[in-house]
Amino acid sequence: MPEFLQSRFFDLYWHYFVAGLAVYIGARLTYFFFNSKDKKEEYKNFGNEADFKTPDQIAESKCVEDESEDEEIMPALPANLKHVPLVFEKLPVHETIERSEEFYKFMNMRRTVRRFSDESVPAEVIYNIIKTAGTAPSGAHTEPWTYVLVKSLEIKQQIRQIIEDEEEINYKKRMGKVWTTDLKALRTNWIKEYLTEAPYLILVFKQTYSFRDDGKKKLHYYNEQSVSLAAGMLLTAIHYAGLVSLTSTPLNCGPALRSLLGRPISEKLSLLLPVGYPAKDCVVPDLQRKPLEEILVEF
Amino acid sequence: MPEFLQSRFFDLYWHYFVAGLAVYIGARLTYFFFNSKDKKEEYKNFGNEADFKTPDQIAESKCVEDESEDEEIMPALPANLKHVPLVFEKLPVHETIERSEEFYKFMNMRRTVRRFSDESVPAEVIYNIIKTAGTAPSGAHTEPWTYVLVKSLEIKQQIRQIIEDEEEINYKKRMGKVWTTDLKALRTNWIKEYLTEAPYLILVFKQTYSFRDDGKKKLHYYNEQSVSLAAGMLLTAIHYAGLVSLTSTPLNCGPALRSLLGRPISEKLSLLLPVGYPAKDCVVPDLQRKPLEEILVEF
Repeated sequence: MPEFLQSRFFDLYWHYFVAGLAVYIGARLTYFFFNSKDKKEEYKNFGNEADFKTPDQIAESKCVEDESEDEEIMPALPANLKHVPLVFEKLPVHETIERSEEFYKFMNMRRTVRRFSDESVPAEVIYNIIKTAGTAPSGAHTEPWTYVLVKSLEIKQQIRQIIEDEEEINYKKRMGKVWTTDLKALRTNWIKEYLTEAPYLILVFKQTYSFRDDGKKKLHYYNEQSVSLAAGMLLTAIHYAGLVSLTSTPLNCGPALRSLLGRPISEKLSLLLPVGYPAKDCVVPDLQRKPLEEILVEF
Repeated sequence: MPEFLQSRFFDLYWHYFVAGLAVYIGARLTYFFFNSKDKKEEYKNFGNEADFKTPDQIAESKCVEDESEDEEIMPALPANLKHVPLVFEKLPVHETIERSEEFYKFMNMRRTVRRFSDESVPAEVIYNIIKTAGTAPSGAHTEPWTYVLVKSLEIKQQIRQIIEDEEEINYKKRMGKVWTTDLKALRTNWIKEYLTEAPYLILVFKQTYSFRDDGKKKLHYYNEQSVSLAAGMLLTAIHYAGLVSLTSTPLNCGPALRSLLGRPISEKLSLLLPVGYPAKDCVVPDLQRKPLEEILVEF
């Protein structure tokens, strides 16, 4: 037996060594547990620099089964993708100026509406509106959106039930005083008539990933931003067609609605928009929009 | 001395008890460290149900100094906000159908452009475009956006330097094989000529919070979604005016660009969009957009 192990020093102090080793093991285990739970989760917001995950880290966390087999990683787009000339017709400058002004005035007329007429809207209008949202740009052209269009009154009633139940809890128990005070001015509460009044509901789901034809997983970079940006185009198309909408974010209802509508686990509810005509005598909050100098900084 | 402590059992096994206690202490310390670091951070994406934070929790984490003093919480909007009739003119149905179709065809012409002409654009066009983005809806009407418009060549060159340095590192070291393979088809690399070619750069910052006139903190609910949605309207306005753009998300450059442009810590870079006319002989990837049946589900 080595001399050290027989020494008096060892006899006295080996307990401390064991205890120290145990603390270290405990710390590493917990670190590992947290690291795999919090860090390898859903891709976070671009811009949260503190926890920004590079695509490499996403690839690691999402494709670990692919990479461990050392397979060739299939791209989202063919590598030899052809490039074609841009179809573009330059407008005379005065027309560019006029159009920019006309479009601003037009868009400034758009208001969020909370009470709808039940008057029907031809389906092809809604199809065109959704196709328009589908022209939005997206990370690596992944087009990570699913538009669930609900016309059935029965399904709308089920959606309304889910949302109102959840919202009532939110209002009464969970919501901070600040949030409900802020919403008081907009006269919102947990009753959401629009969910059954409006002829259509559009539920916008973001696809966090999808699968290629060959079964390999396809990453959807910046899916949250892409889907929200596309929703901006959707709202614009609704307004351009002469209809109205409400941009709603049903709190905590995502999984229940996903389940009701048969969407896969890879999809998450982003927004819910009723679409149609406004109710007769519809009112809106007398809000002002910030003037240009409050939202613009120039260099 | 209690009989137990003198027992042979105790003599043999107390080391294990100490080791177990040490593991537990190590684990708790690490848990505590992670809990305060990861959980009380920036409000996460709506839709990440696993870590969805209700406004109540946000209020707690952000306004703890207000609430501890038991002050009256000031709302974002006045509680007695007047409501006014909606200004709305119903279009004949055939016009609604025609407009929806025309707008879809028009928006389907929009392409992301990577090479710009340096030909100037009248400033008022860009102002109208930004004002249009400012008409977007936002959580509790917080309008949580700042549009930084860069026309100065010197500042554009500094922006380009920051971004290209970062992107080069990304491409060469950090980016996953999947991401760079995906981007290969789009012929992107770390050289970003558009940053100095285009007459204007619009850097879209999201305000995570702001301060009221009385100095109290104002929460910006869903600021990420609101700003991205507004960016969809910005892109539409750019296209409507007869100009082109590129929706870019400069990786890891947020803090450096925020610093260069003098934006406060409450703001985070969301997007960077060059705006102008396309370069002569500009080419675009020959991409197809998903047909309606691939993005639409009906009930």
